[in-house]
Amino acid sequence: MQLHGYYRSTASWRVRIALNLKGVHADHIAHHLRKGEQRAADYLKLNPQGFVPALSLDDDTTLTQSLAIIEWLDETHPQPPLLPTDPIRCAHVRAFAQAIACDTHPVQNLKVLAQLRQLGLAEDKVTGWAAWAISEGLAACETLIAHEPGPFCFGMAPSLADICLIPQLFNARRFGVDLSAYPRLLQAEAAAQAVPAFADAAPERQHDAE
Amino acid sequence: MQLHGYYRSTASWRVRIALNLKGVHADHIAHHLRKGEQRAADYLKLNPQGFVPALSLDDDTTLTQSLAIIEWLDETHPQPPLLPTDPIRCAHVRAFAQAIACDTHPVQNLKVLAQLRQLGLAEDKVTGWAAWAISEGLAACETLIAHEPGPFCFGMAPSLADICLIPQLFNARRFGVDLSAYPRLLQAEAAAQAVPAFADAAPERQHDAE
Repeated sequence: MQLHGYYRSTASWRVRIALNLKGVHADHIAHHLRKGEQRAADYLKLNPQGFVPALSLDDDTTLTQSLAIIEWLDETHPQPPLLPTDPIRCAHVRAFAQAIACDTHPVQNLKVLAQLRQLGLAEDKVTGWAAWAISEGLAACETLIAHEPGPFCFGMAPSLADICLIPQLFNARRFGVDLSAYPRLLQAEAAAQAVPAFADAAPERQHDAE
Repeated sequence: MQLHGYYRSTASWRVRIALNLKGVHADHIAHHLRKGEQRAADYLKLNPQGFVPALSLDDDTTLTQSLAIIEWLDETHPQPPLLPTDPIRCAHVRAFAQAIACDTHPVQNLKVLAQLRQLGLAEDKVTGWAAWAISEGLAACETLIAHEPGPFCFGMAPSLADICLIPQLFNARRFGVDLSAYPRLLQAEAAAQAVPAFADAAPERQHDAE
């Protein structure tokens, strides 16, 4: 199994955490996003979207989209579960994950920020855009789990929600977002940081880290 | 069961199709997005993200995020299935859906376009942005199912992929995207348009249509 990723890609990071939690080994193949390696012809055959991550299985099937990959992993390697078995609880965890993976991260990813620059926006406006998108998303996430007991986003064990949250908080700091308004999210982050599966997936621990 | 939506919201439209396919009735509560009704205090209690759709169940639980709502519906009302049972096939359908629901639609939604205007972009640039985001997404989607036999995105029956595709094609036309480059997507659209569950979910058939 090969994980095509990039050390600082938050979507790749989600899959790294999930693989670690499941105890599943994958060789990590780095594609340097700032050098555009994700748009190389060979890589586009694996993932026509030109995004990382992609997970190539041993039968040459390639899976794309971090949430789809993680749900596949959860279905084929059920322990420990990353989603609750109760359908309503499961929908709440998925909704939290999608508030980040649909409504937050894609609005501030490398491609979108590059497009803003191409439209002539100055660098401070581009950074401001990313901070705006992230703040909107995190504020909603904070409210979504305000009444969840914790310490993780949804209870005593990490789930798909924490897998999406931790990398997004890294991006938030990178773009100067003040996180003090999100104490519940920071509580979940502290709980995750104590788990080796999360710590080992951090960008600075990857072989392609700069 | 109450579906909070808006006739032209593509995310609400996805849930309308899924409810119709499952034969599940929900009262449709309209929130006028251009008047900002999705940011009213009462609605934010249901969905702190301030987005439609939200699905309020009879026990007062509210579900948010269209994909999470549809997967809940699929788990609690299994017939007809909206996802394949094989985990790899299921991952491919989810990846297609997420290429639209994560990487395409959120980059061109009402909120993002309003933010672009606030940064001083002229209306033609804003329209160009939406067309760019949609073209990038649809081009990837066309490739993702190029070798799938059809007529739907993945085989002989509609799935979560078609549920995401049909509303996105409506948005594509709205922003002037030339769809002739996507014959496989148009084949899936033609198949879907012949299904009453899809036809009845169209914006112009909703009680709040203008």
